[in-house]
Amino acid sequence: MKRVTLRPIGTVHSPVREGKAGWGQVTSEIELLPEHAERLDGIEDFSHIQVIFYLDRVTRRERQMRKFHPRDRQDMPLLGAFATRSQRRPNPIGLTTARLLRREGNTLQVKALDALDGTPVLDIKPYSPRHDIHPEATFPEWVRKLDAEREGETR
Amino acid sequence: MKRVTLRPIGTVHSPVREGKAGWGQVTSEIELLPEHAERLDGIEDFSHIQVIFYLDRVTRRERQMRKFHPRDRQDMPLLGAFATRSQRRPNPIGLTTARLLRREGNTLQVKALDALDGTPVLDIKPYSPRHDIHPEATFPEWVRKLDAEREGETR
Repeated sequence: MKRVTLRPIGTVHSPVREGKAGWGQVTSEIELLPEHAERLDGIEDFSHIQVIFYLDRVTRRERQMRKFHPRDRQDMPLLGAFATRSQRRPNPIGLTTARLLRREGNTLQVKALDALDGTPVLDIKPYSPRHDIHPEATFPEWVRKLDAEREGETR
Repeated sequence: MKRVTLRPIGTVHSPVREGKAGWGQVTSEIELLPEHAERLDGIEDFSHIQVIFYLDRVTRRERQMRKFHPRDRQDMPLLGAFATRSQRRPNPIGLTTARLLRREGNTLQVKALDALDGTPVLDIKPYSPRHDIHPEATFPEWVRKLDAEREGETR
């Protein structure tokens, strides 16, 4: 199948340079290329945005993994990569709904964006009630269990 | 900034070959490359999935547009591309939460996927209560107005 080539629209500036953190409390900035500044007009009226980014630190080996346990926990089921939100996927695309704190020119200040410092950003969309909120959705038991455990964490 | 090259993981088979439809009632199939079949294991336990795809029919001219009115309606505000869900964006990446009807091997049957027949798929993620449902989110008035108007439509 024909390859897809994308040019990043900007970069994440984050205090988190490596590893994983309690992302919920992390404040970071998305700096877009100056040519894209105008494309942000009107985004400041949304409280949340969806950030699509390229997980450029994911290794070739991680991309090739097909099945694993969520968080590598043996008490969790063995799942295919596409049944998880893990970064171990063939196209390491990150997708996060982040809280939009402020827009200034070509820069967005956001909260809870789980992207390391320097991560290339591919697209930004406004979070939409009609498209993104599906209260009728159902989930497997392991998701509920993991989420309940994380309630106590910052995220 | 360094370009990002991605290899599609599969293709959309849809009854919709061109133009726009009332996508809400459209049933389509995502056929992944056989090498990815195993990566879907466990996805059948989710009612909804997020499909990230490449809008390969978007023209160069559409990609270059910076500001426009939603649905080209003059009664709507003039907005930057990143403040809308329009396909007119520099990296034409589509992101849709679709209802998962069935999984069979390397194929997913889905409802309400607004992707034309033949569209390349880049990634699939399970819809997650913790990551994707933000009932506290707020939106500008034009979003509420457009959504209210669409209530009567299939989508």
